[in-house]
Amino acid sequence: MSRVRESPRTGHWVTFEPGGQHIWSLPAETLLDTARRAGARIASVCGGRGLCQSCVVQVTQGPVELPSQQDLEFFSSEELANNWRRACQTLACGDCRVEVSARARAVPLRAEVESEDVWVRPDPAVRLYPVTVAAPTLEYPVADDHRLMNALNEKWPGTCSRIDLDVLRHLPGTLRTHGGQVVAIVRFGEVIGVVPPGKGPLPGLAVDIGTSNIGVLLVDLRNGRTLASRAMENPQASYGGDVITRIGKARSSPEIQKQLHDLVVAGINEAARELCESQSLGPEQIADVVVAGNTVMHHLFLQLPVEYLGAVPFVAASASATDVKARDIGIKAMPGAYVHVLPNIAGFVGGDHTAMLLAIGSDHEEKTVVALDIGTNTEISLIHKGRLLSIACPSGPALEGGHIRCGMRSAPGAIESVEISGDQVRIRTIGNAPPVGICGSGVLDATAQLYLAGVVSPTGRMTRKHPRVRIRDGHPEFVLADEREAQGKAIVFSQRDIRAVQLAKGAIQAGIQVLLEDAGLREEEIEQVIIAGAFGNYVDLASAVAIGMLPDLPLDRFAQVGNAAGIGAKLALVSYPHRATAQSIAASSHYFELAGTVRFNTAFMHAMGFPDHKKH
Amino acid sequence: MSRVRESPRTGHWVTFEPGGQHIWSLPAETLLDTARRAGARIASVCGGRGLCQSCVVQVTQGPVELPSQQDLEFFSSEELANNWRRACQTLACGDCRVEVSARARAVPLRAEVESEDVWVRPDPAVRLYPVTVAAPTLEYPVADDHRLMNALNEKWPGTCSRIDLDVLRHLPGTLRTHGGQVVAIVRFGEVIGVVPPGKGPLPGLAVDIGTSNIGVLLVDLRNGRTLASRAMENPQASYGGDVITRIGKARSSPEIQKQLHDLVVAGINEAARELCESQSLGPEQIADVVVAGNTVMHHLFLQLPVEYLGAVPFVAASASATDVKARDIGIKAMPGAYVHVLPNIAGFVGGDHTAMLLAIGSDHEEKTVVALDIGTNTEISLIHKGRLLSIACPSGPALEGGHIRCGMRSAPGAIESVEISGDQVRIRTIGNAPPVGICGSGVLDATAQLYLAGVVSPTGRMTRKHPRVRIRDGHPEFVLADEREAQGKAIVFSQRDIRAVQLAKGAIQAGIQVLLEDAGLREEEIEQVIIAGAFGNYVDLASAVAIGMLPDLPLDRFAQVGNAAGIGAKLALVSYPHRATAQSIAASSHYFELAGTVRFNTAFMHAMGFPDHKKH
Repeated sequence: MSRVRESPRTGHWVTFEPGGQHIWSLPAETLLDTARRAGARIASVCGGRGLCQSCVVQVTQGPVELPSQQDLEFFSSEELANNWRRACQTLACGDCRVEVSARARAVPLRAEVESEDVWVRPDPAVRLYPVTVAAPTLEYPVADDHRLMNALNEKWPGTCSRIDLDVLRHLPGTLRTHGGQVVAIVRFGEVIGVVPPGKGPLPGLAVDIGTSNIGVLLVDLRNGRTLASRAMENPQASYGGDVITRIGKARSSPEIQKQLHDLVVAGINEAARELCESQSLGPEQIADVVVAGNTVMHHLFLQLPVEYLGAVPFVAASASATDVKARDIGIKAMPGAYVHVLPNIAGFVGGDHTAMLLAIGSDHEEKTVVALDIGTNTEISLIHKGRLLSIACPSGPALEGGHIRCGMRSAPGAIESVEISGDQVRIRTIGNAPPVGICGSGVLDATAQLYLAGVVSPTGRMTRKHPRVRIRDGHPEFVLADEREAQGKAIVFSQRDIRAVQLAKGAIQAGIQVLLEDAGLREEEIEQVIIAGAFGNYVDLASAVAIGMLPDLPLDRFAQVGNAAGIGAKLALVSYPHRATAQSIAASSHYFELAGTVRFNTAFMHAMGFPDHKKH
Repeated sequence: MSRVRESPRTGHWVTFEPGGQHIWSLPAETLLDTARRAGARIASVCGGRGLCQSCVVQVTQGPVELPSQQDLEFFSSEELANNWRRACQTLACGDCRVEVSARARAVPLRAEVESEDVWVRPDPAVRLYPVTVAAPTLEYPVADDHRLMNALNEKWPGTCSRIDLDVLRHLPGTLRTHGGQVVAIVRFGEVIGVVPPGKGPLPGLAVDIGTSNIGVLLVDLRNGRTLASRAMENPQASYGGDVITRIGKARSSPEIQKQLHDLVVAGINEAARELCESQSLGPEQIADVVVAGNTVMHHLFLQLPVEYLGAVPFVAASASATDVKARDIGIKAMPGAYVHVLPNIAGFVGGDHTAMLLAIGSDHEEKTVVALDIGTNTEISLIHKGRLLSIACPSGPALEGGHIRCGMRSAPGAIESVEISGDQVRIRTIGNAPPVGICGSGVLDATAQLYLAGVVSPTGRMTRKHPRVRIRDGHPEFVLADEREAQGKAIVFSQRDIRAVQLAKGAIQAGIQVLLEDAGLREEEIEQVIIAGAFGNYVDLASAVAIGMLPDLPLDRFAQVGNAAGIGAKLALVSYPHRATAQSIAASSHYFELAGTVRFNTAFMHAMGFPDHKKH
C-alpha cells in the first residue's frame, strides 16, 4: 500500500470501522470532518486543530496523504508504517477504510447523572389547576380567554391574569374537544398550557450543560421526584473539547455560532424526548425547564456573543438569570413554557458554579469552606463569615485526560487508577476492559505515584533510570502498559504529560492560595473542601493532596459531591425560592480576576513543583 | 372570436389591462386567481364565490369558457356578446387579454388617515434614557448586562430590571462600537433597544386594521406628534371583502389562515417602511406599536382561530388586551419592541370599537350618547348614566357598496351623491371623474332620493312608471347614468339594491331601538349620536334619517368623527394610561347578543320599511 495514489482534490469512498459508516468524502476534507458528516464518532479535544492526540485512527485499507510534519513527530516510525494517523491531519487519496481507535471513539461513561435524589419542599414556579370552563351561549357570549380566566379566578382568586398567545391559539379547540373540562398550567399568573384532564405527573427538566457532557433530569414538579435521568456527550464536542476552542469556532462565523447553539438544543431535545418516552409522556407536556452551564455554554445556549469571553478582561455578555420562552430558544416543551437559565457570576465562573453553590446549601454559611469544580477551567469559591469570594483558574484539559499523550475521557478501557511500587505497576481500567488510554483520575494517580515512587522529582523531572522508563525522541516516558498489555499500542505517561499536570494542579493550588490570602486565612483554617463535578467525584483525594493540588488537610475535611450543578438546577426547578437564592448567590459573590495578576502568577510559579512531604 | 377553442385544463398566457400584467395561467384557474398571482388588482367583495358583482372584466381578445349560468343571468345578452364576465366565474381557454373594469380596479381613496391631530399628554409605555456605560477592566470585570443596568439604575433608580434577549445579543457590540455612549429604550423595566446616541424622534406606530383599509400613523412618542400617516387597502381584500368571507377562507386551511396573517403583517410593514423613510428613519427604530381592529382582523393578525366567530354564539377566542413581541408576530420594529393589541368587547364588537369609545372620550359619561361604527357589521354602543351597552348588527355590505349591482368602493368615478327631482337626476362622482359605479354614500343617497321622490314606496317597492326606470329580467331598475353617460356600461340602482339597503338600514335601526328599550329610553332622549368610520364620515345625515337608519333627531345632535378607531389607537400608543382606560372600557361594557333573539327579529321586521314622514 503506497502512500499516495490519487489526488485528495476529488472525493472518495471512506468507510469508518467498527461503525461501518460508508460515505463519499469531499475534496480536501480531513478524515475527521468526513467522520463528522458520516456521524462516526471520533473524539476531538482541540476541535481539529492538530493540537491534541485525541483523534487517533488507523487506516487499514486504501491510500491517504503522506503524514504531516506534526504526525511524523507524534507517531513512531513503526506506528506510521502501520498507518496510524490523526484524523484531523489526514486526507484520503482514494477509497479507504479507517479503523477508529478505541480511545478516539470512547464515549464518556462516568458522567451519568447521579440518581441519588435530593429532597426539597416542592414549590415550583409552575402549577396545575383542574377547572371546568362553562360553554358559551347566546346569554353568556363571553370570549374563550375570559371564560377560562373567570373559571380559574373564581376557584383560585388571583391565579391568572394572562394567557400565552400560543396557548390561546389552541384554547378554543381544546375547550370544545373536552367539554370545558381542562387543566390549566399556570406560571406566575400566565397560563402556559391547557391540557385535557388527567392524573399524570407535571414534568419539568433540569439541565446541566457541561463542556463535555450534558446531564438531563426529568422531574415531577408536583413532588420533586426525579422520574428519569440521562447523561450524554455534549454534541458540540466535535467542535472542540474545551471552551476556548469553541469560542474560537463560534467567532469564526455566525453560522457556526448558530450550529453550536442548534447542536446543544437538539441534544437536550433528544434527551428529553427519550426521558419522556420512558415515562409515557410527550415533550409537549414539559412545563418548566431550568438550565445551568458554564459561561460559554450559557452564551452558546442563549446565542449570546462569546467573543468578549475570550479576551481580556473576559466579561460575559450577560450574568443575570434569564427567563425565555422555550420555543424562542428551540427547546420542545408545553406551548407557553419558559426556560430559566441560572445566572453567571463572572466571565469564567458560570451558572454551573452558581448551581453548585446552591446545591451545597446554606448550612455552610457559618463555616469556612472552599468549594471547587475542577475541569479545564476550575472555579473556586471561598465561603467565609457569610462572604463569598469566587475565582476561576485556567487549569487546562490535562485533568480531564486532554492534551495528555494517551489521555482519553472516562470510558471503558481508560486507566483510572495507578499504583507503583518498585518496578511493579498496577493499573485498573474502567469496566476492567483492556487498557486503551488514561483518563483524568488515572492521570492524577499516575503523577502522584510517579512522584511518590521517586520516578519524578519535586520539580517534575522524570528519571531515566526506572526500568519502565524509556526514551523517545530524547524524552523519557513511563510505560503504564506495554504493546502486549495494551493491544498493540503502548500506553505511556510522558515527561510532557507530567508538565501538563504541573500546570493544571499549579493553577488550582495557586487559586486556593490567593483566595486564602485575600481572606487572611491559613490553609488549616479551611473546615471543609467541597469538590464537585464529574472529575472531582472520581479523583483520588490522597493523590490530589500528594501532588499539592488540594490543601494538605485531614481527608475527612473533603467531600466529593458529584454533579452538584445538576442538583442545583434541579433545586431551582422544583423550588422557586431556590431560584431567588441562586440569584442572590450570583449577585453577592465577590469575583476577582486572576488572569495576568502578579500575585496569581507568583503563587502559580511556586505551585508548579510538588510538595516535599513524606507523610503520604 | 368563438367561445371555446382550447381546453381550460392547460395554462395560457393572460394579459391584464390597463396594468399590462402578463402571466401564464394555471390549469382550471379563474381569471380572478390568475390576476391575484399577477398582482393585477381586481376587487372581489365575496372572495371569488360568485356572490357579488365586483370583479367585472371584459375579455377583449382570446377565448374564454362559455359564461356560467350565474353570469348568463347577471349580464345582458349584449354585455355577454361584448365578453363582459365576472373574473371569478371565468376560465381562459387560450391566450387572452382581459380589460379590468374601472370599478373592479378602483382602489379605495377616501380612507385616508385623518391628519387632524388629537392632543394628549404624552405618557408612553416606552421611554429613552441616554447613558454612559463604563468599559470593563480587570478591576471591573462586570458583565455587559450588569454594567448597563448599573448605569441606568444609578442615574434613574428603578428604571431597569431586565434586558430583552435579542437586545442582549447585540449589546456587547453596540457598547464597544460607541464607547459605552448609548441610549437605552426601556418599557416597564425591560430594555427593548440599545441605540447609538442621537437626537431623532422616538417613533411608534398606531395601526387601525379595518376589513377594507389599514390606517397607519407614525407618531413621535416623546411629544405625541403625528410624523406621517398612510392608508392602504387591506391586502386581505383579495380574499373577500367582508369578514364572513374571510372567516370562511381562514377556516378552509391553516395555510390560508397563515396567508391572511402574513398579508396584513406585510402590509403594515410596508406602510411602516414608507412612513419611516419619509422621516429618514428605519423600521428598526420603531419602539412601540398599538393595533386596533375588529374581532376578525384582531384574530387574523394574532393568528387566533376564527371559526367560532362565525358560528352561534359568536364568541371570540380572546377579548383581552394582548402584548406580544413585535418579532413574534412578524412586525418589524426595534429588537425587543412589543405590539399592544387593544381588547375586544365581544365576538362582533372588536378592538376598533374599543378604540372608538376611547377616542370619543369620557366627557360623554354624563350624557346619553349613541356611538356607532357603520359597516358590514355595525357596532353600536349606548352610553347612559355611566353605563355602557354594546351590540353588533349584521348590516351587510350594501352600505359600503358591496352586493349592490353597480356598487364599488369609494374611489374616483364612484357616484357619491344623488339628487332626484321629477325626471331629472343629478349625480356627483368622486374626483368628478366619469361615473363607473356607486359607493356607499351614493347608495344611501340614491335610496333616500328614490324614496322621497316617490319612485320607491314605504315598503321598498320600486314603481315602473318613472321614465328612468327600465325593466330587466322582469325586475325594475333605475338608471342613474346611462350607457352614454357612463362610458358604455349603464349605472343602475335595482329593486334588489333597494332590498339590500332595507336589510342594512333595518338592522341598524332595530339595533338602536333594542338598545334604547333595554335602557328604558325614548329616541328623543338621545343627546348625541356619534358616527365613526370611513363610511360614517361621508354619509349624508339627512338621507340616513330620511330612510330611518338613524334616529329622527335634529341634525345638530349628530357628530361624524371619522377614523375614531385610528385616533383611539394613537391615544393608546402615546399615553399608557389610555391603554388602561381602553381595558376598563372593554371590561365594563355590557354586551348582549342580538343574533336570533325574538326582540331583535321583531324590531328588524318593523324597521325594514321606510318611515312615513314628510318633514325632510
